[in-house]
Amino acid sequence: MDCGLLYSGGKDSTLAALVLERFYDVTLVTARFGLTDDWRHAAESAGRLGFPFETLDLDPSVAEDAVARMVEDGYPRHGIQEVHRAALDALAEEGFDAVADGTRRDDRVPSISRAQAQSLEDRHDVDYLAPLSGFGRRAVDRLVEATLTVEVGPSEQIDRADYEAELRALLGEREGEGAIAEVFPAHDQTTVTGRRDR
Amino acid sequence: MDCGLLYSGGKDSTLAALVLERFYDVTLVTARFGLTDDWRHAAESAGRLGFPFETLDLDPSVAEDAVARMVEDGYPRHGIQEVHRAALDALAEEGFDAVADGTRRDDRVPSISRAQAQSLEDRHDVDYLAPLSGFGRRAVDRLVEATLTVEVGPSEQIDRADYEAELRALLGEREGEGAIAEVFPAHDQTTVTGRRDR
Repeated sequence: MDCGLLYSGGKDSTLAALVLERFYDVTLVTARFGLTDDWRHAAESAGRLGFPFETLDLDPSVAEDAVARMVEDGYPRHGIQEVHRAALDALAEEGFDAVADGTRRDDRVPSISRAQAQSLEDRHDVDYLAPLSGFGRRAVDRLVEATLTVEVGPSEQIDRADYEAELRALLGEREGEGAIAEVFPAHDQTTVTGRRDR
Repeated sequence: MDCGLLYSGGKDSTLAALVLERFYDVTLVTARFGLTDDWRHAAESAGRLGFPFETLDLDPSVAEDAVARMVEDGYPRHGIQEVHRAALDALAEEGFDAVADGTRRDDRVPSISRAQAQSLEDRHDVDYLAPLSGFGRRAVDRLVEATLTVEVGPSEQIDRADYEAELRALLGEREGEGAIAEVFPAHDQTTVTGRRDR
């Protein structure tokens, strides 16, 4: 069975790949709007980890809508959630037996409810997997420590490729650089540099 | 890191063990009230799969309370849920780094909410893992088919060792054999007989 996993190059989506690789032929898939080249960082992480990698082009209107929502809200949560759901819908059309993401039990965003999961599966006749959704923050941190090598830093300096980089770029373009710090403040993120030998 | 996994000998808790064994030293643990010898079926499955096995003695008053609740309700759901939570609490006192169960995304019972998971972790300083909680019914069935050999049959004929066998026995003792069919109707269950070669 094959599985397409939404991939950022960060620790959560990488750990999700390690959980799934025993059971599925996993392809790491980075969704992009074509606004920046940040997807290349995810491609690099995927290569170091030894997984096949693909990009998935999303409709730029999804990014425009999400940024408008973030500006209206004054915070990024709902906008990110909209982009994540659009990415899962697009991935589910790619022909994989299963689609997956790296959401954890304690994530507020993105998060997919049981009803949303069932709807995604029914609409696209695909299995939706959230392999980390039964793991809390401390358990994930311990597993990452045991299995991966990572770099940690503020989100504007770390090379990774989730929606944030492109959404920040678009936000700056639409509302000015000041809007980025105001609506979408920097926070520490990790990027995965490789597997740790067991 | 070591992990104690609540184990019945059925497909869900066995698949949970396969997910976790890459990351943890997994011990399969069957909770029992000392009413029947059904735990031996789980011990046998664990041996065939190559996992260490332990039993965990629960206070018989937990079974008495659960059966009283089932009779009052006229169905088993809440009683089973009470036993499952008591079993997790007892397991969390056994000194493992993590405790786990085989609950799936689509299970109505037993199920552990995010708040209950956090409470369990905080009260016992342990990680709680539900490795199948991000997998729906069809995905679990497909993974079981790919990795395990199983036997399926009505619950009164299949050798397994979740709380049901002991709770049924106690229910019959307290309320008469007729109460078993009325309160706790039979349904198809699986027992795992081994690993499938990949």
